[in-house]
Amino acid sequence: MKAMPDAPDKKNRPPAVVLLSGGLDSATVLAIARDRGFACHALTFDYGQRHRLELDAARRIADKLGAAGHRIIRLDLTADAGLGRSALTDSIEVPRDRRDDGQIPVTYVPARNTIFLSLALARAEVLGAWDIFLGVNAIDYSGYPDCRPEFIEQFQRLANLATAAADGPGRFAVHAPLVHMTKAEIIRTGLALGVDYSLTHSCYAPAEDGAACGHCDACRLRLAGFRDADATDPAPYQPPAS
Amino acid sequence: MKAMPDAPDKKNRPPAVVLLSGGLDSATVLAIARDRGFACHALTFDYGQRHRLELDAARRIADKLGAAGHRIIRLDLTADAGLGRSALTDSIEVPRDRRDDGQIPVTYVPARNTIFLSLALARAEVLGAWDIFLGVNAIDYSGYPDCRPEFIEQFQRLANLATAAADGPGRFAVHAPLVHMTKAEIIRTGLALGVDYSLTHSCYAPAEDGAACGHCDACRLRLAGFRDADATDPAPYQPPAS
Repeated sequence: MKAMPDAPDKKNRPPAVVLLSGGLDSATVLAIARDRGFACHALTFDYGQRHRLELDAARRIADKLGAAGHRIIRLDLTADAGLGRSALTDSIEVPRDRRDDGQIPVTYVPARNTIFLSLALARAEVLGAWDIFLGVNAIDYSGYPDCRPEFIEQFQRLANLATAAADGPGRFAVHAPLVHMTKAEIIRTGLALGVDYSLTHSCYAPAEDGAACGHCDACRLRLAGFRDADATDPAPYQPPAS
Repeated sequence: MKAMPDAPDKKNRPPAVVLLSGGLDSATVLAIARDRGFACHALTFDYGQRHRLELDAARRIADKLGAAGHRIIRLDLTADAGLGRSALTDSIEVPRDRRDDGQIPVTYVPARNTIFLSLALARAEVLGAWDIFLGVNAIDYSGYPDCRPEFIEQFQRLANLATAAADGPGRFAVHAPLVHMTKAEIIRTGLALGVDYSLTHSCYAPAEDGAACGHCDACRLRLAGFRDADATDPAPYQPPAS
């Protein structure tokens, strides 16, 4: 599925592949990669997530932040395909106001970042890009194992053994610029780079009209981040139940 | 896409995920994993390969070799999806009687084994399996970078950082039992385990009726393997042009 055609870069910037979910973190990463001088080729996955709003958000963000290209890859990671079992893809209730208990939450999608990075690697090889960006974070995050810095370093090592490209003189770099930032630092960085966070979608359990629930892990981390950054979240939220 | 339902194993064997392409190598690996006492869950990719015969071959092999389950995952790795550019998926001519020149051939699919292993890892996590088998080979092979033993070792390391499962006491093992075998050794092993090689499909450029060309890399390695194993390839070949 092609969302935007690839175009040769007029400014001669090096190409990079940027994983773009449509959320706050990946939008910020796209702005950072662009600011570092890359022609950004955004890559989004239509993996069976229950909330399709993410895909619309990704399209808007890629367009608004001047991505050089944007592809949406279809890949069924649901229980039905035998590959998943997550509150993000299947009929499992998203927890509200969950306390961090050191457990991996039900929103975990098995091996998701490994799968997404492996497809980003293929995309990079096809584009002749050496740089892959993703918005994982190990501070204000849900405790997913595939968001840790050791995981990212190990994937980079793998990338440089896995490809025809890396048999030449080049080396792949996997950039996770948010990995050690707090959510507030991410938001301040994005605001300074002109990210319009009203375009982003984070909520795991939105209303029909797209309004965020304010109570899932993603909403709580996002709201706390805006509060700590002394900024106002421009995304629409559902009114509290009376 | 579900090809065969998952069933709880009646013999209480541990589950394993086996990548099954429908070719000679992966059929042999399935027989080896089964012989080692695993309940084998075969995983096949419908990735846009030009020759759909592979998928039919995979179905027949999974059935004949008593796989505990078989899933076919759809994932578009073609140039059209922005992820590929290979003679196996796109309109690029498959070389005939190619000499090994140390170059990676046009049949290379970018990052293919990284992508397939990452999906096998998700499948393993869903099944509660710790063992993943694949049929890569670094002796009689086409020179693909993602068939080397170092690549497999690095992927195993990644698997043990990437998943919720590996945060517990278990460890994933990625088995490549053919990696140091010659094609003749692979064939002898498979024949001893009762593999019916007439069910397998290797050719990159078959005729309409499925008959193998006898001249692509895959056919040449296969034919030489049967010759060296003092066995006859039961697969149908096209008659030589007169």
